[in-house]
Amino acid sequence: MPIWKRTACPISTTLDYLGDKWTILVLRDLFRGKERFCEFLESPEGIPTNILTDRLKRLADAGLVERSPYQDHPVRYAYRLTPRGEAFLPVLQEICRWANREFPETVVPPAPFRMREA
Amino acid sequence: MPIWKRTACPISTTLDYLGDKWTILVLRDLFRGKERFCEFLESPEGIPTNILTDRLKRLADAGLVERSPYQDHPVRYAYRLTPRGEAFLPVLQEICRWANREFPETVVPPAPFRMREA
Repeated sequence: MPIWKRTACPISTTLDYLGDKWTILVLRDLFRGKERFCEFLESPEGIPTNILTDRLKRLADAGLVERSPYQDHPVRYAYRLTPRGEAFLPVLQEICRWANREFPETVVPPAPFRMREA
Repeated sequence: MPIWKRTACPISTTLDYLGDKWTILVLRDLFRGKERFCEFLESPEGIPTNILTDRLKRLADAGLVERSPYQDHPVRYAYRLTPRGEAFLPVLQEICRWANREFPETVVPPAPFRMREA
């Protein structure tokens, strides 16, 4: 079974996994050091719990995120970027650079995302 | 009214406009020189007509695309990237570079997208 759902185009394949309003925001939060389910829920965009569950699973299935238990009773997981997930950072940096330039009302993001250019 | 729908985060704002499985594919096709409604429909991912209509309007509302009539009876429009849309190219290039590296089954895209690295 091919890894893509529509065509072998790298853009289409990326959108098969990450093309929605929430998945890339979860990646953003992982780059900012968030690890636990409750931490993602606290982000100001207000991701619903069922969507967060689905998107974390989708990111794990695509190999961008791995989880490990940090508590046993009840079991609770911490989520971290894999090397494949870490490698997505340049895409987020270019998105920030573009949005900061084209929509000056957006805020300059903290590290590790690129800063607004002169 | 702010230009963003959720927060002033540049990533969130970008996803407000482009965060779905189809919008960025329409951008890809515009970068490849497609201009007419029927040309977008011919792409192998098979975008449905109602979604294409909606996404072209969304891209125009966000200032990434402009349209001009190329025929009068009946009126038909050609769609082209604005400077804001053209400026999105580095994001697409980074997506291609990431996907080609992480999913070697994807094809190396033609210009203007970046080629697979050694």
